[in-house]
Amino acid sequence: MAAWGERLAGVRGVLLDISGVLYDGGEGGGAPIVGSVEALARLKRSQLKVRFCTNESQKSRGDLVGMLRRLGFDISEGEVTAPAPATCLILKERGLRPHLLIHDGVRSEFDQIDTSNPNCVVIADAGEGFSYQNMNKAFQVLMELENPVLFSLGKGRYYKETSGLMLDVGPYTKALEYACGIEAEVVGKPSPEFFKSALREMRVEAHQAQ
Amino acid sequence: MAAWGERLAGVRGVLLDISGVLYDGGEGGGAPIVGSVEALARLKRSQLKVRFCTNESQKSRGDLVGMLRRLGFDISEGEVTAPAPATCLILKERGLRPHLLIHDGVRSEFDQIDTSNPNCVVIADAGEGFSYQNMNKAFQVLMELENPVLFSLGKGRYYKETSGLMLDVGPYTKALEYACGIEAEVVGKPSPEFFKSALREMRVEAHQAQ
Repeated sequence: MAAWGERLAGVRGVLLDISGVLYDGGEGGGAPIVGSVEALARLKRSQLKVRFCTNESQKSRGDLVGMLRRLGFDISEGEVTAPAPATCLILKERGLRPHLLIHDGVRSEFDQIDTSNPNCVVIADAGEGFSYQNMNKAFQVLMELENPVLFSLGKGRYYKETSGLMLDVGPYTKALEYACGIEAEVVGKPSPEFFKSALREMRVEAHQAQ
Repeated sequence: MAAWGERLAGVRGVLLDISGVLYDGGEGGGAPIVGSVEALARLKRSQLKVRFCTNESQKSRGDLVGMLRRLGFDISEGEVTAPAPATCLILKERGLRPHLLIHDGVRSEFDQIDTSNPNCVVIADAGEGFSYQNMNKAFQVLMELENPVLFSLGKGRYYKETSGLMLDVGPYTKALEYACGIEAEVVGKPSPEFFKSALREMRVEAHQAQ
């Protein structure tokens, strides 16, 4: 515990991942990782600020938090930094109207976004939505733009489900990058900008975070 | 014509592409490019050896040649160098059994190939066959191999159809390369090995070909 005390000297806030840290996903919604419900409760009782930083892009924050609360976690929607709402902020700031190649489960996050006459593409882990037709449509939208802009919600290679390894968004982002000769802007981990936005929301400096 | 005479000095053979050179594809099978039927006929009457070198990977050579003959071209199956039969030779030489992520139209080229218990993946322009499920299956096969081997039939970014631009095999190859952290072996243009095999089949040296 002494070692921990030293390591935590000056620390004012803690950023926590969700999948693989609080719970393991899978068919039927997943299960808490042993000890994580109580560990989070202890963190919340401490002096430390707590925020959640996730690349979850198949669920809205509302659905994600609802699921975690049912598993026993003390978490609210406003405490979660996730790629979809972060992307919405960027789209609004830059006056961009996206064509969305995303999972239906996260579509509600974009309810307030104008998607008419698109001038960029947003790609996220669409799972079965990564059909040839949907990929081709996103490709065609990009090729019709004078300055093609592609946002990728994370760039993970793959993840594990109970049924086996599953392709994540990263490979499909690489496909569009190669097809169009462009480079995507990644919103989500490991982008430094994404971590910084989580820290801003927690009102903690980088050197004060763990 | 004098310039052509000089340029052709020492030339003994001509390699011709097919799509975009002999004909333009599209709905309903495509149409000959103006003058190409007669140009090919003249080449065949000359002293020059003629061979066709194509990246066509959605049709078997038999189907491709049948279509071209119906359009009026003097061409036979044995004159065509194409990625699918070239891949079959490599698979046999190296004792490899492929999992095939290919278009149904070219599947017959692999009729003589053992695809049980696969120890490599062959990817070609599968069109609508590039579903999430099919891509994920190819990915899982590669990840289960100690030494993942991926053959890509060409690496084109996209091609044009009457309905618009269409994603070619290249983007999907890049997706699997990124997901697995590997590099594909390209069979087809622009691989030098592929051109060399066409020249060998024509029995002409590189410096004698145009």
